[in-house]
Amino acid sequence: MTVLIASVPSGTVTSAKGFSAGGIFAGIKTPGVDKKDIGIIYSSAPCAVAGTFSQNTIISPTVTLDKARVETGNLVHAVVVNSGCANTAVGDQGMIDAKDMTKIAADHLGITEEQTLVSSTGVIGVEIPMALMREFIPQIEVTEDGGGEFAKAILTTDKRTKEIAVSFDVDGVTHTVGGVSKGSGMIHPNMATMLAYITTDANVETRFLKETLSGAVKLSFNQIDVDGDQSTNDTVLLLANGAAGGSVISGGDDASKAFTEAVLKVSQYLAIEIARDGEGATKLIEVTVNGAHSTDDALKASRSCAASLLVKTAVYGRDPNWGRIFMAVGKAEIPLDESKIDCYVNDIQIVHAGKAISYNIQSVVSALGGDQVRLRVDLNVGDGTGVAWGCDLTEEYVVFNSAYTT
Amino acid sequence: MTVLIASVPSGTVTSAKGFSAGGIFAGIKTPGVDKKDIGIIYSSAPCAVAGTFSQNTIISPTVTLDKARVETGNLVHAVVVNSGCANTAVGDQGMIDAKDMTKIAADHLGITEEQTLVSSTGVIGVEIPMALMREFIPQIEVTEDGGGEFAKAILTTDKRTKEIAVSFDVDGVTHTVGGVSKGSGMIHPNMATMLAYITTDANVETRFLKETLSGAVKLSFNQIDVDGDQSTNDTVLLLANGAAGGSVISGGDDASKAFTEAVLKVSQYLAIEIARDGEGATKLIEVTVNGAHSTDDALKASRSCAASLLVKTAVYGRDPNWGRIFMAVGKAEIPLDESKIDCYVNDIQIVHAGKAISYNIQSVVSALGGDQVRLRVDLNVGDGTGVAWGCDLTEEYVVFNSAYTT
Repeated sequence: MTVLIASVPSGTVTSAKGFSAGGIFAGIKTPGVDKKDIGIIYSSAPCAVAGTFSQNTIISPTVTLDKARVETGNLVHAVVVNSGCANTAVGDQGMIDAKDMTKIAADHLGITEEQTLVSSTGVIGVEIPMALMREFIPQIEVTEDGGGEFAKAILTTDKRTKEIAVSFDVDGVTHTVGGVSKGSGMIHPNMATMLAYITTDANVETRFLKETLSGAVKLSFNQIDVDGDQSTNDTVLLLANGAAGGSVISGGDDASKAFTEAVLKVSQYLAIEIARDGEGATKLIEVTVNGAHSTDDALKASRSCAASLLVKTAVYGRDPNWGRIFMAVGKAEIPLDESKIDCYVNDIQIVHAGKAISYNIQSVVSALGGDQVRLRVDLNVGDGTGVAWGCDLTEEYVVFNSAYTT
Repeated sequence: MTVLIASVPSGTVTSAKGFSAGGIFAGIKTPGVDKKDIGIIYSSAPCAVAGTFSQNTIISPTVTLDKARVETGNLVHAVVVNSGCANTAVGDQGMIDAKDMTKIAADHLGITEEQTLVSSTGVIGVEIPMALMREFIPQIEVTEDGGGEFAKAILTTDKRTKEIAVSFDVDGVTHTVGGVSKGSGMIHPNMATMLAYITTDANVETRFLKETLSGAVKLSFNQIDVDGDQSTNDTVLLLANGAAGGSVISGGDDASKAFTEAVLKVSQYLAIEIARDGEGATKLIEVTVNGAHSTDDALKASRSCAASLLVKTAVYGRDPNWGRIFMAVGKAEIPLDESKIDCYVNDIQIVHAGKAISYNIQSVVSALGGDQVRLRVDLNVGDGTGVAWGCDLTEEYVVFNSAYTT
């Protein structure tokens, strides 16, 4: 059985069967055209759920609550998310409000609070305006074409929404995986949080769902860098409600392979869009490291390179400054042999066997002028390959993040 | 016996007895008023030596050569340093040239090449112009008041030289510890390298010399951050020639304690000056973390905070944005209890027990307006204390590091 993965045109987080969503403007953020600040994803059928969360020691109580509810293995029906306020570092009130948000959403949807997850993104250290939650959450209408509304509701200072869906057929049953994310536009201080929600109507066994999400996150969200800082609220959730009517997917067969590939495709798209929309960014930087001793080495080296401020500023300045690439790969502290390294910018080779070769500088400068730059480092010591994505660092990043809020 | 440490007025790397130095302009860098690009530190008496070097996997052959020569435990007489060219990533020619530089300097000084160490700082991937080395190294005059000339010779795009000396008396014998460093002004790409040379006329046993340097580097050079990138050429050398005529210092007594304190004082001064002179910086940021479970935890958390781009831009923008401080301390992944954290900006408390307290915002904004900002985080879970130093991140950093070189 060959399973083909296809893009769903205008796909959203509600493209998978049985999912609906919606958003509303409650006034947590300053008003603006088409702005929303609370959103809900809902599935009438109960969902198996997997999640990955911020590794920061200081986390939002919303993350603590979601982690606990995901760990029980119980099925869930909904996620409620607000933007504009992170509900982080506000003492005991934070958990009270997080639980209360799930209770208000659950009452509205006719489910239990334990079947409801919650995220917040926005300013740290400010309490959630619960009066607004009580007033506006019950007004949110969830509909099958509400994915786009939800996508708007979770944005902070992102320039655009980030949505996708892909589908695959198994034994005549079409399965869909849809996703939505928001990234780190940090014009308003502390608005940096990476949130992503992936939905599927596949019938996925919980253990395999968790395994699939971990694998996909490792090769997508964990391989992007905007500014090296890690939010207290980062969350990726994968919900599976089985509404497609297919057989159970639990690993080891072609359907499982297709599901894994679909989730990876959605995750990478959403992750790359976050990097591309990085605060102040003008270019997406894709760094591929080939020929490392292991996949982990390659992932580490590519991410070190995508995260280096000197690489980011060199790309911004269209400077084929391969010394910085060497430095960034070297500081990943993986085994390598300097005399074997080849470097490429958009497939134009600039370094062979660890030394500069004579190349047409104009063609490289011109390649660096595009809005997507590919850097490739071949270590030539093994078979490990890894890719990471970052964005350039511009004056705008500094201006945005140093703007007075006082 | 009480030992007092005193500052040496206008102290330099030649303040310790028996050390001389000099510098010359050879034309490796573009010419400018009072510019120099090759320097030598020399001691007529042989020196015990300790060194700490870049942890980058890709390092300059000068670092490889120095490491090997320091590891033999043999005494040395001189260090020759050039700025403008890093002698890194140039294939086998790099080691040939590094050795050749020590040979040329050794012949000039009447010592052996094995008694000579070497550093380079500047552009990566370009071969050292050895013709200039052969012509100009023999013209360098080393004198007892040449410390300032050497300090100029190692600069790349630093705005100023960094020099200091302190002294302490033991049984009527005055011992001096002098030092010089250069930092990471990176206007010209890849010019980022941290070099520091510390000299002393104390008679220090080699094992204790190494122990002292490692201890001092941990609390100074390893606690500063300009942009998170790590040079391929970073080097700190400590040379002890015994010319003060004092007894052997080998640990465990008051003289050893005074020597340790003097080396730490010199190291911290030189490290802090590098952070203060960070590329594009307008402010020095000092971050103190108290009450951690251990010293290592406190050092890690303070450095994470000093290195965070969001903290750097908040300080630049005079924004008392403590949520970013929480995020940065939390991402250090040390054990802490959020509800016990207190935060201070220049001694003004802004967070108590993990929550914002009402403070006079104008006074904090005004404190952030100075050219030195002190952030303090009390974790209140133990006795560990650590300090780190960084600088703010400004538009100028981006402009400098993205300037076309092509």
